[in-house]
Amino acid sequence: MIGIKSIASYVPAQGTDNYEQGARFGKDESFILGKIGSAFLPRKAPDQETSDLCVEAANALFAANPQLSRDAIDALIVVTQNGDEEGLPHTAAIVQDKLGLSTAVAAFDVSLGCSGYVYGLYAIKGFMEAAGLKNGLLITADPYSKIVDADDRNTAMLFGDAATATWMGEDASWQLGRASFGTDGSGADHLKVSDGVFFMNGRQVFNFALLKVPAHLQELLLASGLRAEDIDAFCIHQGSAAIVDAVARRFEESDPDKFIKDMLETGNTVSSSIPLLLEKHVLNSAFKRVALSGFGVGLSWGSAIIHRSD
Amino acid sequence: MIGIKSIASYVPAQGTDNYEQGARFGKDESFILGKIGSAFLPRKAPDQETSDLCVEAANALFAANPQLSRDAIDALIVVTQNGDEEGLPHTAAIVQDKLGLSTAVAAFDVSLGCSGYVYGLYAIKGFMEAAGLKNGLLITADPYSKIVDADDRNTAMLFGDAATATWMGEDASWQLGRASFGTDGSGADHLKVSDGVFFMNGRQVFNFALLKVPAHLQELLLASGLRAEDIDAFCIHQGSAAIVDAVARRFEESDPDKFIKDMLETGNTVSSSIPLLLEKHVLNSAFKRVALSGFGVGLSWGSAIIHRSD
Repeated sequence: MIGIKSIASYVPAQGTDNYEQGARFGKDESFILGKIGSAFLPRKAPDQETSDLCVEAANALFAANPQLSRDAIDALIVVTQNGDEEGLPHTAAIVQDKLGLSTAVAAFDVSLGCSGYVYGLYAIKGFMEAAGLKNGLLITADPYSKIVDADDRNTAMLFGDAATATWMGEDASWQLGRASFGTDGSGADHLKVSDGVFFMNGRQVFNFALLKVPAHLQELLLASGLRAEDIDAFCIHQGSAAIVDAVARRFEESDPDKFIKDMLETGNTVSSSIPLLLEKHVLNSAFKRVALSGFGVGLSWGSAIIHRSD
Repeated sequence: MIGIKSIASYVPAQGTDNYEQGARFGKDESFILGKIGSAFLPRKAPDQETSDLCVEAANALFAANPQLSRDAIDALIVVTQNGDEEGLPHTAAIVQDKLGLSTAVAAFDVSLGCSGYVYGLYAIKGFMEAAGLKNGLLITADPYSKIVDADDRNTAMLFGDAATATWMGEDASWQLGRASFGTDGSGADHLKVSDGVFFMNGRQVFNFALLKVPAHLQELLLASGLRAEDIDAFCIHQGSAAIVDAVARRFEESDPDKFIKDMLETGNTVSSSIPLLLEKHVLNSAFKRVALSGFGVGLSWGSAIIHRSD
C-alpha cells in the first residue's frame, strides 16, 4: 500500500508585507490578522518559474531523506494551474529534467486548484498501484503571483507563493483512508483567469465553502464509521482566517481548536496549503488520525482521512 | 478491477481538405497520403470549445450505453493541454456542468499530449480504485486547431480535432495489464506553445519516436513474459503515416501489418488517436491482447498491454 512517507516545502523568503499592503487598501491590522490571516505573503522572484519552485521543494525532500535516491523516483505528479508554459509541455516534464531524475519516470500535471492536494494524493497512490510503481513525488506549486492583479483588493491580500513535495511509497507511516470528492462546474466563473488576470468572487466562494465543507466532512465521517472525537486534527485549505474560522464554528461536532490554522507567514498557497500543515503539524506529531479538506477553483472539493499505520 | 467497458468519439464533420492544403505547400498527393497519412483534417467550429468536444464524445458514449446513467458517473478525467480557459478553472469542471453530471463527481484534468491516453487509463483506474469509485469517464480532447499556425508547413498538414470518451468500470471486457512510462524533459522544447502558437521540431520528434517506441514495446513485452506473437495488434499514436510505418518496420519481431494505421480521415488527433483506434478496430474485434504506445509532448511516452477479460 502506497502512503505518505515524508513532506518538504519551499516558501520564498522574499515577499510582501501584508500590513503595508492592507494600509494601501484602507485595511487595518485587525482586518489583516483576523480576516485575512496573513501578515506576510511570500513571492517567487520574477525569474523563478513554477518548475523552479517544484525543484526547490523536491530538493528539500531529498535533503531530508538521504535514503531516497533520485534514481528511485518512478512517478511524478505536479499539481498546478500556473505551469511554466502555455498549456504545453506539462511542467512535470520540465521538473524531471531540472531534478535530474531518470527518464524512466511517469510524469504528468494534474490541473486543480485549492482541492488539488487531496485529489493528488489519491491520483498518485492509485496511479502508482495500478502501474506497479514504487516511489512517487507529489508536488504542488501554483504561484498566484503570476496572475493576481496587485491592485485587486479582493485577491491581492490573500495569496502567497509556495511549493511542497510529498514522497509517496511503501511502508509509509501515514496511510490514506476513505475519501470523498465533488465538482460543481456551474460555479466555474467564481474563480477564473481572463486575459491573464485572476478574478475571484470572494463572497460566492466563501458561501460555497461554508455550505459545502462542514457537511462534506460530516458525510465522510459517517461513511467511515467515525465520530468527530476520533479525529485528532482537521487540516483544511487555508483560504483565509475568516473561512477557516467559519468552517470550524459551523462544524459543531468538534472543538474548533482542532482545526489547525497556520497561514500567518504564507498566505493562501492554493494546493500547497494542506501539505504545509501536514509537514509542520502532523507528520511528526502524536496524532493518529487527521481529516483533510480542500476546496476552491472549479468549483471543486475533496476530503479525506489519513491515519498513522499500525 | 476497473477496466475499459466502452469507447465513443466525436470527430467534427467539417474540416480541411489536406490535398488542397498540401498543394498550397507544394506537396503532391503521394506525400499527403504516404508521409502525412491524412486526406482530411477535421476542425471544430470556431465557437466550439474544448469542453463542447468532450460533451459530444460523452453524449455519444451515453447513447451507445443506455444502461449507463449520468448519475452513476463518479469520476471524470479530461486529458488536454488546450482546455477552455487560461489555466484555471480546469475543463473537467466545465464538462461536469455541461453534461449534467452529479456534483458528487471527482473531476480533474491531466495535462499530457500524445502519450495522454495511456497515462490516463492508469490514472483513472488507479484513482477510482484508491478512492472506491465505480464509473468513470476518461475523456480526451486536445484541439490543436486552437494553436496550429495555418501557414506552418511543419504542423498545418498534420493535426485534426477530435474527442473520445471511455467508460471505465467493473466487469469490463477489456482489462489493463502491465504498463511502462517515461519522460525526458530535456526535449521539452521540441514541442511547445509560445505566444499562442505551436512549434514542433518534426525531425527531432521523429527521431525520438523511432528510437524510443520500438525499444519500449520490446521491454514491455519482456517484462510481461510475452512474445510479439502473443500480441494481436499494436495501436500506437497516429503521429503521421511515416512515423507509424517507421516504428512498425523497426519493430522487427512482428509483422508490420499488426500495427494498425488509420488516420486518413482524422489526422493526428493527439491523445484521441489511440482510443479512436480502440473504438473502431479493437473493442468489438476477435483480438485477445493488444499493445498500446503513445509518445510526444514532454517528451513523454507510455506503453501498455490490454487484454480481453477471461
